[in-house]
Amino acid sequence: MFPKNAWYVACMADEIDEKPLGRKICNESVVLYRNAANQPVALENFCPHRGAPLSLGKVVDGNLVCGYHGLEMGCDGKTVAMPGQRVRGFPPIKSFPVIERYGFVWIWPGDGTPTPLHHLAWAESPDWAYGGGLYHIHCDYRLMVDNLMDLTHETYVHASSIGQKEIDEAPVSTKTNGDEVVTSRFMENVKAPPFWRMALRGNGLPDDQPVDRWQICRFTPPSHVMIEVGVALAGKGGYDAPAEHKASSIVVDFITPETETSIHYFWGMARNFKPQDKALTATIREGQGKIFAEDMEMLELQQRNLLAHPERKLLMLNIDAGGVQSRRIIDRLIAAESAVESPATVAA
Amino acid sequence: MFPKNAWYVACMADEIDEKPLGRKICNESVVLYRNAANQPVALENFCPHRGAPLSLGKVVDGNLVCGYHGLEMGCDGKTVAMPGQRVRGFPPIKSFPVIERYGFVWIWPGDGTPTPLHHLAWAESPDWAYGGGLYHIHCDYRLMVDNLMDLTHETYVHASSIGQKEIDEAPVSTKTNGDEVVTSRFMENVKAPPFWRMALRGNGLPDDQPVDRWQICRFTPPSHVMIEVGVALAGKGGYDAPAEHKASSIVVDFITPETETSIHYFWGMARNFKPQDKALTATIREGQGKIFAEDMEMLELQQRNLLAHPERKLLMLNIDAGGVQSRRIIDRLIAAESAVESPATVAA
Amino acid sequence: MFPKNAWYVACMADEIDEKPLGRKICNESVVLYRNAANQPVALENFCPHRGAPLSLGKVVDGNLVCGYHGLEMGCDGKTVAMPGQRVRGFPPIKSFPVIERYGFVWIWPGDGTPTPLHHLAWAESPDWAYGGGLYHIHCDYRLMVDNLMDLTHETYVHASSIGQKEIDEAPVSTKTNGDEVVTSRFMENVKAPPFWRMALRGNGLPDDQPVDRWQICRFTPPSHVMIEVGVALAGKGGYDAPAEHKASSIVVDFITPETETSIHYFWGMARNFKPQDKALTATIREGQGKIFAEDMEMLELQQRNLLAHPERKLLMLNIDAGGVQSRRIIDRLIAAESAVESPATVAA
Repeated sequence: MFPKNAWYVACMADEIDEKPLGRKICNESVVLYRNAANQPVALENFCPHRGAPLSLGKVVDGNLVCGYHGLEMGCDGKTVAMPGQRVRGFPPIKSFPVIERYGFVWIWPGDGTPTPLHHLAWAESPDWAYGGGLYHIHCDYRLMVDNLMDLTHETYVHASSIGQKEIDEAPVSTKTNGDEVVTSRFMENVKAPPFWRMALRGNGLPDDQPVDRWQICRFTPPSHVMIEVGVALAGKGGYDAPAEHKASSIVVDFITPETETSIHYFWGMARNFKPQDKALTATIREGQGKIFAEDMEMLELQQRNLLAHPERKLLMLNIDAGGVQSRRIIDRLIAAESAVESPATVAA
Repeated sequence: MFPKNAWYVACMADEIDEKPLGRKICNESVVLYRNAANQPVALENFCPHRGAPLSLGKVVDGNLVCGYHGLEMGCDGKTVAMPGQRVRGFPPIKSFPVIERYGFVWIWPGDGTPTPLHHLAWAESPDWAYGGGLYHIHCDYRLMVDNLMDLTHETYVHASSIGQKEIDEAPVSTKTNGDEVVTSRFMENVKAPPFWRMALRGNGLPDDQPVDRWQICRFTPPSHVMIEVGVALAGKGGYDAPAEHKASSIVVDFITPETETSIHYFWGMARNFKPQDKALTATIREGQGKIFAEDMEMLELQQRNLLAHPERKLLMLNIDAGGVQSRRIIDRLIAAESAVESPATVAA
Repeated sequence: MFPKNAWYVACMADEIDEKPLGRKICNESVVLYRNAANQPVALENFCPHRGAPLSLGKVVDGNLVCGYHGLEMGCDGKTVAMPGQRVRGFPPIKSFPVIERYGFVWIWPGDGTPTPLHHLAWAESPDWAYGGGLYHIHCDYRLMVDNLMDLTHETYVHASSIGQKEIDEAPVSTKTNGDEVVTSRFMENVKAPPFWRMALRGNGLPDDQPVDRWQICRFTPPSHVMIEVGVALAGKGGYDAPAEHKASSIVVDFITPETETSIHYFWGMARNFKPQDKALTATIREGQGKIFAEDMEMLELQQRNLLAHPERKLLMLNIDAGGVQSRRIIDRLIAAESAVESPATVAA
């Protein structure tokens, strides 16, 4: 169960630069490619001729030519031409709204009217740099939302990089504002863990002094989590410290359901210090990739445990409030979609 | 769904020269081996003692000895002996009619009386040479019949070897004669694609001149497709040109269902030029193997698409007529088999 | 179907020396680890907080700390602590009775009151040495019981190591005493097969003389088979020959069901000659490991055959008496367990 009337990341922009890409998104088999104007297109990955996957075709003059028998598909899902055939009566395939922005191609898998894409200030500012990657994980997308909205797991899953005992000890505060959930934690005068010492050095700051550390997790539908994270040299103002005393960034998490129990997980980090330093971007990306890989086995085995015990009620502690409140918003959106669909179904 | 009262290729003759072979054919688990007279035998791959796979046994004095506890199985499915046991009351296992001919072992998986095996003139003539191979593909056998009865796919799937734009442009003609479907296409004064330039050179002909090209696909039940293909130097008579002006051959396709959605695909090429030239046979076989491997991903993903969308009606265009008419024959044979079986079932 | 109120081997003792071990046993997901007293503990592998697998956690001060969010689980399945939480109301998880003895950790998966663990004299005597290993096999545990209670298979499956024609020819005798089944076979004045020639040499005896050989298979519930095996120089008394004329040992088989169709197979050999000779232990272990690996393909394909043909009745010959009688005991135990459970179910 996932909202379908929402913008999800379908792929990183460069994944379709060379050739079409087949990807299952929210249970829909989709082919993504670029048209003649270099704009992204998303269609059902199903040739109306014989059901071949269009993703094995190639783009000719901006149209996707099926790699099996040459049916030429238009960007709107209507067949444009086929050698030796009149194609006017060919059944159309589904075309999905797509937008390319912020380095990603976004898709709207549902039938509802697309809303404007949310704004990501860091993604369009020269003061910020971004690096990230993509993991495929066999778990319900909501388990990843839970994961990201409760960072106490860093102490255990990521003990050698970003975890530290003080995360557990600092009180967590969770608030819901409309469709946004914010859960935050502030630690004062602590030792910076290895990842942050690396970031401090990367920003030209000493890495051996006490710091103030913060984590502000922000869930927005359908399943995006942006986390403001950082450290400032202790006593300089913490989160509000002037830029020269801190290293801070935004952990970027776009979670796109593939099926009920698998996800495409687009992870990354946006930072607003030394944005031109590509070597630093690569170093941070590599470190973050290793850290986020540590979650995969945990989430996949947790998923298997939950499938084996659907009757068990899990605990909802204060640290889980971020995930619990995010799921409430998700549930409300799913219910709203099914309420809209039901009358139509009845009418039909 | 496949006809079971029919001759299918079970294996290439040399696959059982060394030891027994276990293979699933039309959903039947079969063990194939050679008896004392070096003739092929096909039995259920199920030892009546404890259900062990007989294919893990070995042949001793022409009988298959179970590799688990030594039950000695006769070629008729009746137990011959077992150490320390009286075997007269042992239940027999199914024995399948088999024939070794044309370099293959043929099996009749059904319960009906076997008909004579069809004749393959090229396979018994010294004027012809044959080379081929075996691929395992996860698709309904009928998708492969469709593939072979509509060669417009060559332009797209095999663009770099045998495909050329003129295939799309040449009209296709399809005829049904009883249980045979023939679909043919003739192209005049075209450039030979790379595979055929290689064949022309192999036959001592120039490879840089315009040619007349032909493709005559012949479906016969249960799922065999023989394709006469060739090129003649342009203007020499095309398909009817004298042998010294052409390179021609028969693409040989024996499609044996393993399950409803997987096949053993025996492919090959028989040619009637330079039949003694083993190096040429090897070169052609290697080229064909690469070409036919290009179909595999397409067919497997097409199969997945169709399983995910059983409700979708596919198009049946003029180019699809060969496959459509072949399927009609298959359907008729399946219906006839089930009509024969039904009264028996009722009686039982 | 397997008895659950019984002691099964959960793991070899050293499998939990370094870190917790997750293993499915009789369909239960279990985590095994050592507490502060270095004693084994077995709990459900399911954190009551969010369903994470506890096996990814680590042991701190004898308690298992969940690797996701730090819940500290006690050895009795009750949560001890969690950072920032009151844990008194947390639901307990199941704790399984365990015993460490004879180099193994034994688990009692059922809800009934554990009985005393059976005694294994060889495992606690300095006159004996033991070496063994663990294989995971996709078959019903009863197929392995059958395998071990009918050693005629050695002639076929293990022809090059312990098999010999005389096994087939020697009469087998099977007796049931309460819950124990014993099936035995004696061969006189035979040639020792390769494995036993190695053992004779290992014991300082000539390997080229005729021997008397014996096999006494002993099944005890739930699914343990101990096999006394050995050879004595011919005419010295066979099984009863003085120690200096023979090489004998006990094949040790603890079969632990993982699921209905998969097992953890703990195999090994205990010998009472040259018990201090660790090189000999290693040589025997390596040889036995290779021999027992030969059974795996047979059992897995047999299992697939049986799943495909659930309606077929298998033969029950005299050589199968050991397995047949063992299965009767197993069936009786399963029936007894379900008789106990049923009234409770009705009451609920």
